[in-house]
Amino acid sequence: MSVKSKILVLGGTGYIGKFIVEASAKAGHPTFALVRESTISHPEKSKLIESFKTSGVTLLYGDLSDHESLVKAIKQVDVVISTLGGAQINDQVKLIAAIKEAGNIKRFLPSEFGIDIDRHHAVEPAASFFEQKAKIRRTIEAEGIPYTYVSCNAFAGYFLPTLGQQNVTAPPRDKVVILGDGNVKGIYVTEEDIGTYTIKAVDDPRTLNKTLYFRPSANVVTFNELVSLWENKIKSTLVKIYVPEDQLIKLIQESPFPANLLLALGHSTLVKGDCTNFEIDSSFGVEVTELYPEGKFTSVDNYLNAFV
Amino acid sequence: MSVKSKILVLGGTGYIGKFIVEASAKAGHPTFALVRESTISHPEKSKLIESFKTSGVTLLYGDLSDHESLVKAIKQVDVVISTLGGAQINDQVKLIAAIKEAGNIKRFLPSEFGIDIDRHHAVEPAASFFEQKAKIRRTIEAEGIPYTYVSCNAFAGYFLPTLGQQNVTAPPRDKVVILGDGNVKGIYVTEEDIGTYTIKAVDDPRTLNKTLYFRPSANVVTFNELVSLWENKIKSTLVKIYVPEDQLIKLIQESPFPANLLLALGHSTLVKGDCTNFEIDSSFGVEVTELYPEGKFTSVDNYLNAFV
Repeated sequence: MSVKSKILVLGGTGYIGKFIVEASAKAGHPTFALVRESTISHPEKSKLIESFKTSGVTLLYGDLSDHESLVKAIKQVDVVISTLGGAQINDQVKLIAAIKEAGNIKRFLPSEFGIDIDRHHAVEPAASFFEQKAKIRRTIEAEGIPYTYVSCNAFAGYFLPTLGQQNVTAPPRDKVVILGDGNVKGIYVTEEDIGTYTIKAVDDPRTLNKTLYFRPSANVVTFNELVSLWENKIKSTLVKIYVPEDQLIKLIQESPFPANLLLALGHSTLVKGDCTNFEIDSSFGVEVTELYPEGKFTSVDNYLNAFV
Repeated sequence: MSVKSKILVLGGTGYIGKFIVEASAKAGHPTFALVRESTISHPEKSKLIESFKTSGVTLLYGDLSDHESLVKAIKQVDVVISTLGGAQINDQVKLIAAIKEAGNIKRFLPSEFGIDIDRHHAVEPAASFFEQKAKIRRTIEAEGIPYTYVSCNAFAGYFLPTLGQQNVTAPPRDKVVILGDGNVKGIYVTEEDIGTYTIKAVDDPRTLNKTLYFRPSANVVTFNELVSLWENKIKSTLVKIYVPEDQLIKLIQESPFPANLLLALGHSTLVKGDCTNFEIDSSFGVEVTELYPEGKFTSVDNYLNAFV
C-alpha cells in the first residue's frame, strides 16, 4: 500500500476548505492547515479550529505575505491545496512563488472548485473573476508545478437548501425565481463528496496536470427538474417567476458589487450552462465517476429530502 | 469664476462610475473616461459609451496594466476619480504609481463609495474586502497624493427598489427579510446625488485630504422605518422575517463567495450600523449637507414613490 501524502490546506477554515481538511484527515493523510494568527481569535472560527485539532490536523500559523513561513510550511508536505476565498485569488502568486522555492511539492490544487474557468460564457464581472483564476492556472503551468484543477461545479449545500433563492434561510414553498428558461443543465455536488473525491485525486497519477470534473449523473439536473423534484416532495406547486436572459443582463449591469458578481455567476451556470456545455476530452480532463466507478455520490434527489 | 478642473474617471462604465461621468460632464468639467478596448465591443456597454460621447466625454483607451498609457492619460487632467469594481481594488496600486509619476494630479478619489472602511465592524469576508480599500488609502497617504475619500453609504437605486431583498426584481408586497432587529440606522443616497456632490467636492479645498460623508437627514432611516414607509405607500402590511445576528453570522460562514460577502456587507450596514455609528470629526471628515446647505437630495420617502 502506498504511503499517504502529506497535505497542506490554505483557506481551510473557509466554506469549502473545511470539507477538504476534514476529508484529508479522515482519509488518513497527515493534514496541515495554515491559518492566520488573527483567524484563531475569531469567535466564528475557533469552534472549527478545535474540531480540526480533534481530527488530528496540525495547525500551522502563517500568512500569504510572509514568504519564509510559507516556504517552511510547504517543505513539510507533499501536496498543497488552496481553498482561499474569492478575494484572495490573485494572492496565490505568492503561494506559487513559495512552492517554486520549496521545490518539493508533488501536486498543487489552486483555489477553483467551481466551473471550468477556461470554458465559460460568463459576462462581467464574473468574466474578470474567472480571468483571475485563469491567470493563476497559466502561472502554475509556466512554472512547471504539477497540478490538478478541481471543477466540482455548484455546491449542493449552498444552492439546494434554498433552490438558489438569495437571502432566504429555507427552501421556497410559495414561489421561486428562475434565471433564464430553467432548461439548462447544472451540476450540484455535496461539499462532503467534493472533499472526499478531491482528496482521493491528489495521489492519483490519472489526475496529474488535468482538470478533475464532477459530473455524477444523479447530480446533473435542470433548474426546472430541480423545482419539479421539490414540488413532488412538498406535494405543492410553486409560482414560477422566470427572469429572461436580457432582463438578467440588465439586472447585472444595474447592480453594484458584489451583487452583480453573484448574478453573473448565476447567469454563467443557469443560463449559459457553463457546468455542462462542453465535452470532457482526455487531453485536458478526467471525470470523477469514470475514475472512481465504485464511488457513492449523494444525489440531488436524496439531498433534497432533508428539507421537506 | 474658477476654471473647472479636468476630470479622468476609471471604471466609468461601472455601476456608480456612469453617474460620476455624467455628473462631471453635466457640471461642465472637461471629462475623460479611460476604458479598455475590450469594453467598447461589449454589447452591454456600447450604448453607455455612445451616451458618454453625446455628453461630450472624451474616451481614452487604456488599461491599468499599461503604465505608459495610464501616465499619458493622467497628464491630461487635474483630478482622477477611480470607480473601479470590487475585484480591482488592489489593482489601484498601479494607478497610484502612475499618478505619482505623472506628478500633476491635484486630487485623487480612490474607489470607495460605501461605508467608511476605517470605521467598520464587519466580519469576514467583508473585513478583508474593506482592508483592501484601507491599504489603498494608506498607500495614497504614504505617497503624499492629495485625496478625498467619498463615503456615500448605501446606493438607493440598488437597495430601495427591492428593500434589499436579493434576486427579486420588484419591491416586496407580501413578506420581507430583515437582517438583525431592523432598528439600526442606515443611509440610502441616490446615485445621481452621489455623482453630483462627488463632482462638487473635487475642487473644494474643504474636502482636501478628508473623507466626504453623505448624511442628508431625510436619507437616514432604520430598516423598520423603511418597511413602514413602504407599507404606508402600498397600504398593506408585510410579513416580517427577522434574521437575528447569530443566525446571520452562521449564514455568512456557511455561504460561499460571493454570497458570504454580500451577507457580510449587509451585516456591517444593517446590523452593526456602520453607516452611522460614529461621529464625524473635522480632523478627518466633512459632511455633504454641511458643506452644501443649499443642496437638494432625493429623500428615501420620495424615492420610494416611484415603485408603488
